[in-house]
Amino acid sequence: MDASALLDLLGNGNRRRILRLLARKPCYVTEISEHLGVSPKAVIDHLGKLEEAGLIESRIDEKRRKYFHISENLRLEVTLAPYDFGMKSAYPASPSLDLSRCQYLSLETTRWTVSGDRTDSDASNNGTADGADAAVPDLIEELDELEDLERELSLAQRWVHGRIASVLDRLGDAIDSEESLDTEILAAMADGAADPGEIGDAVGAPPAVIEEHLRRLEHREIIERDGGGWTLADA
Amino acid sequence: MDASALLDLLGNGNRRRILRLLARKPCYVTEISEHLGVSPKAVIDHLGKLEEAGLIESRIDEKRRKYFHISENLRLEVTLAPYDFGMKSAYPASPSLDLSRCQYLSLETTRWTVSGDRTDSDASNNGTADGADAAVPDLIEELDELEDLERELSLAQRWVHGRIASVLDRLGDAIDSEESLDTEILAAMADGAADPGEIGDAVGAPPAVIEEHLRRLEHREIIERDGGGWTLADA
Repeated sequence: MDASALLDLLGNGNRRRILRLLARKPCYVTEISEHLGVSPKAVIDHLGKLEEAGLIESRIDEKRRKYFHISENLRLEVTLAPYDFGMKSAYPASPSLDLSRCQYLSLETTRWTVSGDRTDSDASNNGTADGADAAVPDLIEELDELEDLERELSLAQRWVHGRIASVLDRLGDAIDSEESLDTEILAAMADGAADPGEIGDAVGAPPAVIEEHLRRLEHREIIERDGGGWTLADA
Repeated sequence: MDASALLDLLGNGNRRRILRLLARKPCYVTEISEHLGVSPKAVIDHLGKLEEAGLIESRIDEKRRKYFHISENLRLEVTLAPYDFGMKSAYPASPSLDLSRCQYLSLETTRWTVSGDRTDSDASNNGTADGADAAVPDLIEELDELEDLERELSLAQRWVHGRIASVLDRLGDAIDSEESLDTEILAAMADGAADPGEIGDAVGAPPAVIEEHLRRLEHREIIERDGGGWTLADA
């Protein structure tokens, strides 16, 4: 979808809160309404707009209740500068397609980094004759190269984005959970958090909620108790 | 400024059109109002919000008329995926600070790219036992690494963004013009566009406007006539 339409949707705080909630776990209308303190009617209105744009989808559970989840996988980038206002939205790049491109990016970055002269004179920004009298063709060439590099970085970001989505998906399958809070807890534990307080700080949830999730993860033998704290179970 | 506040501002189509206009050249309220077909009162209201947020600034010209220009230099990135909704806004990274980081990124990208096994099995996405039975700790490690790489790519983007803004600034000084259309015309010519039609297509402006700018750039000896077309003057 185009960047303007996406900005129109994301320009609303409650729609952002709904997306944040759905990124944690699929929800019913009533759950969203209670969590956000917004009337079911308003929630349905926001969900309708998000669904129409294809950002979310609904499913019917076994009790024939409708619940919503994020279906779209995309990135939005906005750049603002005195002579530049640009925005683009893009889908994740295919993992296979981008492998070679990332290699190219790597070469490009290296080439750029080692072309020290120009970079240094610019970095010091001390208005030497060099900088002040920079010839127009040189500046245009530099601009061209920077714009190429920007496009490549953007492509690499879309590649990483696709990879992260795929790993999160596989992680959700592996621990048989639709709640991304479980994933976030495991990621925080991988980062060294060992007790509910530390984990709660890392993921932004109260210790009581964390403890409940930890017990479920223990029950599934994904984590185990280690002294007073918790640790990831061996593979 | 924080990403939510920025999205609130960018969620309005007329504010985006104002920013697009100001990125081309600094403008008076009446210019913006006429160009957008929006009442001066509404334009003043939007400008007030943009100015309050620090995205734009006003100056007074020699006739004591107020005009506006973009003052802020920032990037916004939003990521949406089934288990992920994240947004961040950031200022350009300092050119000197990031030089070494980019080198690190380059190494990281290479390392990642050459670790072919994992990438290939994921890329083919054919549900082999490997993929299906991926151990939770392995997936979490992969997620951790991808998130590091994402942070580095984002930092590299901010570095490039800062560099582009600096080059555009110097280019504006070098050709003594506050209108970014001049810069865009020169960039299009560097890309091979040689006549007003081609240049107009590249920058999205009518040939008549392009011709007027070309004549001014010729007058300043930045470009010169070359047969039926135009070419950049030698440094």
